[in-house]
Amino acid sequence: MKTAILTVGTEILFGQIVNTNAAYLSEQLNHLGYDVMYHYTVGDNPGRLHDLIELAFRDCDLILTTGGLGPTQDDLTKEVICETMGDHLVVNDDCLAELKAYAARRNRVLTENNYKQANMPSRAIVLPNDAGTAPGFALERDGKWIISMPGPPREMTNMFRKQVKPLLQKWQDSVIYYRQIRTFGLGESLMETKLLPLIDGQTDPTLATYAKEGECSLRIASKRPTKEEAKAAVDEMTEKVKAIIGESIYSYDNEELVDVVGRILKEKNITISCAESCTGGLFAGALTDVPGISAVFERGIVTYTNRAKMEELGVSAATLDAYGAVSEETAAEMAEGLAKKTGSDLCVSVTGVAGPDPSEGKPVGLIYIGLTYKGKTRVTQVQRHNSSRKWNRNYAVLTMLHEIYQEIK
Amino acid sequence: MKTAILTVGTEILFGQIVNTNAAYLSEQLNHLGYDVMYHYTVGDNPGRLHDLIELAFRDCDLILTTGGLGPTQDDLTKEVICETMGDHLVVNDDCLAELKAYAARRNRVLTENNYKQANMPSRAIVLPNDAGTAPGFALERDGKWIISMPGPPREMTNMFRKQVKPLLQKWQDSVIYYRQIRTFGLGESLMETKLLPLIDGQTDPTLATYAKEGECSLRIASKRPTKEEAKAAVDEMTEKVKAIIGESIYSYDNEELVDVVGRILKEKNITISCAESCTGGLFAGALTDVPGISAVFERGIVTYTNRAKMEELGVSAATLDAYGAVSEETAAEMAEGLAKKTGSDLCVSVTGVAGPDPSEGKPVGLIYIGLTYKGKTRVTQVQRHNSSRKWNRNYAVLTMLHEIYQEIK
Repeated sequence: MKTAILTVGTEILFGQIVNTNAAYLSEQLNHLGYDVMYHYTVGDNPGRLHDLIELAFRDCDLILTTGGLGPTQDDLTKEVICETMGDHLVVNDDCLAELKAYAARRNRVLTENNYKQANMPSRAIVLPNDAGTAPGFALERDGKWIISMPGPPREMTNMFRKQVKPLLQKWQDSVIYYRQIRTFGLGESLMETKLLPLIDGQTDPTLATYAKEGECSLRIASKRPTKEEAKAAVDEMTEKVKAIIGESIYSYDNEELVDVVGRILKEKNITISCAESCTGGLFAGALTDVPGISAVFERGIVTYTNRAKMEELGVSAATLDAYGAVSEETAAEMAEGLAKKTGSDLCVSVTGVAGPDPSEGKPVGLIYIGLTYKGKTRVTQVQRHNSSRKWNRNYAVLTMLHEIYQEIK
Repeated sequence: MKTAILTVGTEILFGQIVNTNAAYLSEQLNHLGYDVMYHYTVGDNPGRLHDLIELAFRDCDLILTTGGLGPTQDDLTKEVICETMGDHLVVNDDCLAELKAYAARRNRVLTENNYKQANMPSRAIVLPNDAGTAPGFALERDGKWIISMPGPPREMTNMFRKQVKPLLQKWQDSVIYYRQIRTFGLGESLMETKLLPLIDGQTDPTLATYAKEGECSLRIASKRPTKEEAKAAVDEMTEKVKAIIGESIYSYDNEELVDVVGRILKEKNITISCAESCTGGLFAGALTDVPGISAVFERGIVTYTNRAKMEELGVSAATLDAYGAVSEETAAEMAEGLAKKTGSDLCVSVTGVAGPDPSEGKPVGLIYIGLTYKGKTRVTQVQRHNSSRKWNRNYAVLTMLHEIYQEIK
């Protein structure tokens, strides 16, 4: 079914928030076999919102909206949709009771403007919101549907999962199966050039590359009458791709690198600690985002000063004097010192110049990563060009993860 | 000038990447006094891309596009725009030379598909790309303009700053001045209710609230013939707002809480260290994102295990036995132990249950934050409800920052 995602909110047009809702819904809809044709964003403006709904219905049979269901005066999505779909608002007793119960549970007083959230289009399927005060709804006109959800991502995703997804599963007509393959260290042009014999003239499965900083992904997708047929086509193509770029692939299942590394560490019961300088805790923060990692993650030390590097990790003053804090030698001593201190199976260290300014006469983007595993230490050097502080730090974390992956895969 | 932002890329409709470009451009355009009316996203499809351009030109005089300028087969934004604007492509010698020079600098070989990036509409103003291989361009038809930029955010923002912004500044007709006020600990409904006397019937300056998890912002905007007039109107309204909700405001200048805290620490030369359990390094990672923080940030310790809490911070076994790792007592001993070890002026600690599962019989979302400053230690308790692991961790970091802010402001 052809679908449009319509996000309502002046704050998005002002650039105050990033539209993560559209990305989440797109991914979910694609999984369910719906074709997302457009994303639209419009402000809290009745005329333009009405026009975009009519426009979307020219091509699409389904519109998912997020935003504009809140209690404030500029929230008018419900009112506009109701009118556009030829319906009128009535007080919904269930919604009103829920709203009062929600406020009571949290010891909050309902303000006057909260009450309008209990009004609903008379023909709507009401979608309860157990994570906030704004219920959603589904409303039909001439066989076309609008499903309207609140804007805050936590409320929206919760409502989608519990209320909307089951509805969409009932309506579905064909099945897309896809696999997202992830690589590290391979540019997009090079990947496409290598895969050109597979991409050229291919209609199903389709292959599409896309690049993120430091990573490049490949999506293999097939749309068939049944899931089994689509999956078989994707599996067959996957084997062909593997034969060409298998060396660079770290996930056949769209896993983040940090999740792959976390999973292997847990499976093999390899304990890990880390010592960070330029990344300042981002590596530990990323790794501890993996649920259950506490079984193997022991300790992280952020040694931002030379004193901390000496006291915490036993890096020698002589090394810091001779080579500086950003050096192969310091990275090695950081990893080795951490291994001695913690006894963890694998110890990783990082020291570098994140920027914006050079340090110790060394250029921005120079990064050393140390890794001690099974009594051996090795150091990897990276030099980023024209890259921001933020991206130097993020790329350092990615490279640390990839070095660990190479070691334990 | 009424403006639309048009993002091209199937990967966005698949939900593989989040559309951060639209947010960045919206913010920049608003600063320059341009009215962003719409965001559109469409796949790499010539017909639909053409139709959306024509649609946007019905309301708008300017379209900014990102994406689809890459070297691969499905990148066809330039070709479609060129045709829609009644122009044709020619090889641009400057672009070709730049492309070759770029590849030479990085020791890369140009693949066949790279060469099409040197083609340009014959009437275009070419916008060089010194961060990648795809140049952008500006193209006019009947007084309406399209400005087309590459999709990767690093290339796009670089091109916008250096090439597009100067163009837009020349074209500008009126001035928006705005101020973004940021608060912590105040819900959106409550903020609007308190400010209703100022919001009601207000046309300029306008006031708009918006909520993020844990924070709520207020935007005061004025559009006047000159910047001075707009600023004066915003300043006057700011004073009225301050009189009502001043206690909850931490920035009058849209600063992130972490930047405010980092700035004050640096200004007052207060040295800081942190000890993290449930946040696993995220606090240190956030704070060290502030350039120059190395002047005051000394050390971070991620003590994920009880052993690490004892060895690194001197938390007593008796305390861990009697109260558990997630307790007021442990949070206090973590902060005090860290202060003793590092001698930093301010030491902050955190221990909590991030989830997804309860721990030590304690509920998900329970967080204790310890703070030792000037010889005194205090602990703050937070209980989050129905919140994810990710958000419990992020909220813990925000609360740590806010506790520090309260102490040092």
